[in-house]
Amino acid sequence: MAMVCLSDFEAYAKKYLPKIAWDYFAAGADDCTTRDENILAYKRIRFRPRVLRDVSVMDIRTKILGSEISFPVGIAPTGFHQLAWPDGEKSTARAARAMNTCYIASTYSTCTLEEISAAAPGGLRWFQLYVHRNRAASQQLVQRAEALGFQGLVLTADLPYTGKRRDDVRNGFRLPPHMKVKNLEQAFEVCKMSPLDPSVTWDDIYWLRSLTRLPIIIKGILTREDAELAVGHGVQGIIVSNHGGRQLDEGPATIDALVEVVEAVRGRVEVYVDGGIRKGSDVLKALALGAKCVFIGRPALWGLAYKGEEGLQDVLRILQDEFRLSMALAGCASVSEIGQHLVQFSKL
Amino acid sequence: MAMVCLSDFEAYAKKYLPKIAWDYFAAGADDCTTRDENILAYKRIRFRPRVLRDVSVMDIRTKILGSEISFPVGIAPTGFHQLAWPDGEKSTARAARAMNTCYIASTYSTCTLEEISAAAPGGLRWFQLYVHRNRAASQQLVQRAEALGFQGLVLTADLPYTGKRRDDVRNGFRLPPHMKVKNLEQAFEVCKMSPLDPSVTWDDIYWLRSLTRLPIIIKGILTREDAELAVGHGVQGIIVSNHGGRQLDEGPATIDALVEVVEAVRGRVEVYVDGGIRKGSDVLKALALGAKCVFIGRPALWGLAYKGEEGLQDVLRILQDEFRLSMALAGCASVSEIGQHLVQFSKL
Amino acid sequence: MAMVCLSDFEAYAKKYLPKIAWDYFAAGADDCTTRDENILAYKRIRFRPRVLRDVSVMDIRTKILGSEISFPVGIAPTGFHQLAWPDGEKSTARAARAMNTCYIASTYSTCTLEEISAAAPGGLRWFQLYVHRNRAASQQLVQRAEALGFQGLVLTADLPYTGKRRDDVRNGFRLPPHMKVKNLEQAFEVCKMSPLDPSVTWDDIYWLRSLTRLPIIIKGILTREDAELAVGHGVQGIIVSNHGGRQLDEGPATIDALVEVVEAVRGRVEVYVDGGIRKGSDVLKALALGAKCVFIGRPALWGLAYKGEEGLQDVLRILQDEFRLSMALAGCASVSEIGQHLVQFSKL
Amino acid sequence: MAMVCLSDFEAYAKKYLPKIAWDYFAAGADDCTTRDENILAYKRIRFRPRVLRDVSVMDIRTKILGSEISFPVGIAPTGFHQLAWPDGEKSTARAARAMNTCYIASTYSTCTLEEISAAAPGGLRWFQLYVHRNRAASQQLVQRAEALGFQGLVLTADLPYTGKRRDDVRNGFRLPPHMKVKNLEQAFEVCKMSPLDPSVTWDDIYWLRSLTRLPIIIKGILTREDAELAVGHGVQGIIVSNHGGRQLDEGPATIDALVEVVEAVRGRVEVYVDGGIRKGSDVLKALALGAKCVFIGRPALWGLAYKGEEGLQDVLRILQDEFRLSMALAGCASVSEIGQHLVQFSKL
Repeated sequence: MAMVCLSDFEAYAKKYLPKIAWDYFAAGADDCTTRDENILAYKRIRFRPRVLRDVSVMDIRTKILGSEISFPVGIAPTGFHQLAWPDGEKSTARAARAMNTCYIASTYSTCTLEEISAAAPGGLRWFQLYVHRNRAASQQLVQRAEALGFQGLVLTADLPYTGKRRDDVRNGFRLPPHMKVKNLEQAFEVCKMSPLDPSVTWDDIYWLRSLTRLPIIIKGILTREDAELAVGHGVQGIIVSNHGGRQLDEGPATIDALVEVVEAVRGRVEVYVDGGIRKGSDVLKALALGAKCVFIGRPALWGLAYKGEEGLQDVLRILQDEFRLSMALAGCASVSEIGQHLVQFSKL
Repeated sequence: MAMVCLSDFEAYAKKYLPKIAWDYFAAGADDCTTRDENILAYKRIRFRPRVLRDVSVMDIRTKILGSEISFPVGIAPTGFHQLAWPDGEKSTARAARAMNTCYIASTYSTCTLEEISAAAPGGLRWFQLYVHRNRAASQQLVQRAEALGFQGLVLTADLPYTGKRRDDVRNGFRLPPHMKVKNLEQAFEVCKMSPLDPSVTWDDIYWLRSLTRLPIIIKGILTREDAELAVGHGVQGIIVSNHGGRQLDEGPATIDALVEVVEAVRGRVEVYVDGGIRKGSDVLKALALGAKCVFIGRPALWGLAYKGEEGLQDVLRILQDEFRLSMALAGCASVSEIGQHLVQFSKL
Repeated sequence: MAMVCLSDFEAYAKKYLPKIAWDYFAAGADDCTTRDENILAYKRIRFRPRVLRDVSVMDIRTKILGSEISFPVGIAPTGFHQLAWPDGEKSTARAARAMNTCYIASTYSTCTLEEISAAAPGGLRWFQLYVHRNRAASQQLVQRAEALGFQGLVLTADLPYTGKRRDDVRNGFRLPPHMKVKNLEQAFEVCKMSPLDPSVTWDDIYWLRSLTRLPIIIKGILTREDAELAVGHGVQGIIVSNHGGRQLDEGPATIDALVEVVEAVRGRVEVYVDGGIRKGSDVLKALALGAKCVFIGRPALWGLAYKGEEGLQDVLRILQDEFRLSMALAGCASVSEIGQHLVQFSKL
Repeated sequence: MAMVCLSDFEAYAKKYLPKIAWDYFAAGADDCTTRDENILAYKRIRFRPRVLRDVSVMDIRTKILGSEISFPVGIAPTGFHQLAWPDGEKSTARAARAMNTCYIASTYSTCTLEEISAAAPGGLRWFQLYVHRNRAASQQLVQRAEALGFQGLVLTADLPYTGKRRDDVRNGFRLPPHMKVKNLEQAFEVCKMSPLDPSVTWDDIYWLRSLTRLPIIIKGILTREDAELAVGHGVQGIIVSNHGGRQLDEGPATIDALVEVVEAVRGRVEVYVDGGIRKGSDVLKALALGAKCVFIGRPALWGLAYKGEEGLQDVLRILQDEFRLSMALAGCASVSEIGQHLVQFSKL
């Protein structure tokens, strides 16, 4: 079976992963409307391609918070990579470094931050944080990440409680006994009583600020009002995200929300987006609408499920090739030439 | 089979109810367009969720006409509950009281008002009235309900004649011989010649007013013009309803009509809505658009069909949990924080 | 099998008619887009039903060009009724008279005008004309119709050439040898060289006017420009029609074109519509949008195919009952109460 | 099997062509969205047909760059006609001449320009050019074409790199060994390293101008900005094209882009369109929206696959008959009567 596009990896993962793992990764909240809308919304955006521009030399590099990456696609934080591949997040870290891009490691990793760091020294990594009822546990995590050379702190804002994912309820999803949320082994046990703190508010940004010198990126913003609050509270970046449609169902597709957020932010901080990226041209659309970079979640897991580090590299390489080609066919030779003039919203 | 969401109960009821009963409950008028639109219209409403608000303590209680209920979901009036469960409306009354919410008992109950009252003393109940050609029968019913402690009188306005439900015609639907429209055993026999009075007009509100001190709620309003007339005639509440799509096909979905009615009413009376509620987030949408409370029809019957009183409680508990979760994920800690800013209409 | 709604008759006809006859009646031009759009367009119109109006006494009669009919549904001109039922147009005439409505007999009848008249003396009938290259033949037809008591002359304007109906081409459609286009046996033979005159223009209205005192109704108008021309040339009525989607594919649905035509005509002549009527509520929508009456084509043929005169009466009676019920449920007790306030166009 | 409409030829070709050839011709880039949109977009355009106009004498001829053709449909440049029929482009040339229309021969022909010319002397032909890294090879081609009597030079602007057509990747598509890109046998070998020059810009129009006196037509324009540039650089014609959806996926349908381009061009040069033409009425729509002529790609290949020269003539004849009929049914007797008043965009 030739792996030609990302849906080939999806089909592979669906076929070969244990059902309970596939269901967990695939799950959306309630009717999965938002999960699917994330993808459909890209289809409603049409390019306005320009021709006869010199695209013989293509430059697809970009920078996020000052660090250069080989192309504007990073790895979004997702949990439990050992469900996809035995080496788990260590493989993810290696693939991201090999492709010279950014990997956001999740609080819910099945490897420790130390293992992740050791697996791919020098790779560009951010750390994603869920704030715990036990604030000391969170503080310790943040400071471990900083000490290990993680270069950004991503605060997830859209999970005061876990969304209702019907298949996980039906399956009685829990980690197999030989896997652990290793970073927090002492602090809690997953899937029993939620350790996450639903009382977190904007003021806690100041608390995080007091713990670390890392840039703070807030993940889960979908409205101009919250984008304004994020900027006002001094974050360095915003990830427009609806948690892959796994939290509140029937909110906006992220690519639609991106437009609203970018407009509100007016360039004061970097804006990224995740959710629904399946082709290189989706990346081009997101950049045309103002994203500095996109992050992929499920496709990275499909790559891991296919062949671990190597499979994830395949996924990234395909996205990279497709992104370069779609840039060229749209008439852009470098990322700096990408702008809103390249796209229009279909009336359909 | 795990009962995770309301459609699980629907699937159960479809599988285990006699076809003639399932068809009767499921029926919509003509092509069933409005029945289905009631559900689809919710899908076209998108949340604008807010993040980083303290949702550690959730308060989902509300009041309708001064009575507190545990969450803004009541039981809409539907007929013939014995078709779903042997104890019929007695089970419904018990489940509603157990969940501390309001039950609107139908004129077409298969238990008497007295049986319903005795089954769940102290429960919050309203009585739904069809006006009969024999006005004395109607007067007697209203006064029995008031004497039994029912706390509201719901006048159904959209059934001068019964809608054309093709499956009922094909099935030759009628109640089995051992069931009776008990409240009216003397007054008429169902499914022969219609006893309902198609000459009822707005002036009859005054007649009802003269019969009882109960608040009058009018059910079946879909336009601003009729909402204005309702307020002008001194009703205490309006239920935006299209009778579950069982009367005039191809009218508006109730959630769409709600917007128009709420705007016309300008807070002068309480406005409720029924039709198409299938998830806790639907309740949140209805409240965001101005409903004080929603009422469920078919899902209550599915709950009864599953396990009687207990099954209906399951349905209500699922809705309650989903409503609470969707409120939290949208950034609201109490019902008073819900407002129109939470939603937008999708252009699709 | 119970005949509950018009699609029951359609299913019957599809099952029992010879394929070549079914295909001929069902045919639309090219991709059949307009044929199907005629039906879909009704679905995009939503009622705004009013409640608590006295609908105990319903009056569904109307008048067309001064003649009272029992309800605003007549029989559109369609050809070759013997393909549906042995007695052909004689059965159609009898059914229309029995239901006290108007029947527009086609030039392409398989019975003579004399046979049609004799079959149902005193029935309200109009005659539909295709203008022939042999103008004398047309003149003779018009004058025969007038002498036989037909009360209107319907000029079909949208068939300078016959549309491309792929199934008819594949089937090599032609009338079976024992059927004839009897009114024109001498003048031409169908399906060889077309006898219709593609040079007919608006000036030919004056020529028709010179032949007869009958009111002239023009059929096939879809634009405001042509509606204005029709009024300017002194016709008495307009039938908004796209020939059941059998001529130019991908023109407007007739119910959509009706709005434009009614607006242009400003009440100067009566406007009717055909195409896509499948339920009583479709009739109500057409009247709300300004039609004085609608005409049914294929459903009449299905009724004939089911049981001849009796089957067509069944179809008409169902439409009548559905129309009366939908009027009542929309809050109208008589046709004069129907108006544009009853409907709105769905944004979907 | 009767060949009644173009989709009959499509079905034939799909059934009888080798899968690798069918896939190559059918391929669209990525998800094939644009390929399919080219067709769907026509469906969203509705005619406003006019009636009672004298259409007894129909004139469907037109002129492109001064040359008369029998009707406004030419053959778009597509590659590798021997994959469809042994005689390849020689058959295409013969069919185009027989039908008195224009054939744009592709750089990627499997016959030489000399063979094409000799096959159908006197036929109206244009030559389509891909600019090579080896500019001398391109210069020689252009000058051979001019010397052979080709009357136009079509520069394809939308292929700096080849689009990603998943099926071709899966199939490992390449020409069978007995076929050659004959015009360039010395210059390159297809499907190894691309010989096309991705550095071509607008300035190269001046270079082409210096090579030949042929009118230059630019193919692949989709925006008003590029249309303005094309006019500014002195081209004689523009073909609005997205390469049949084979290059950048999710750009506009060509019929939608046509409107924008025609508006920008304001009659200064001729505008043509290709992509999605499947019926004679599509041609009418394109002309109503300002195209001087349309070109067909895949349908021509299906015709070749059916019966070579004869099959392609069948395809053209069907389009011609359908175009003539739809013109008449829309009320136009000659191409000069076609205008924007004939169409409107559906809101759906």
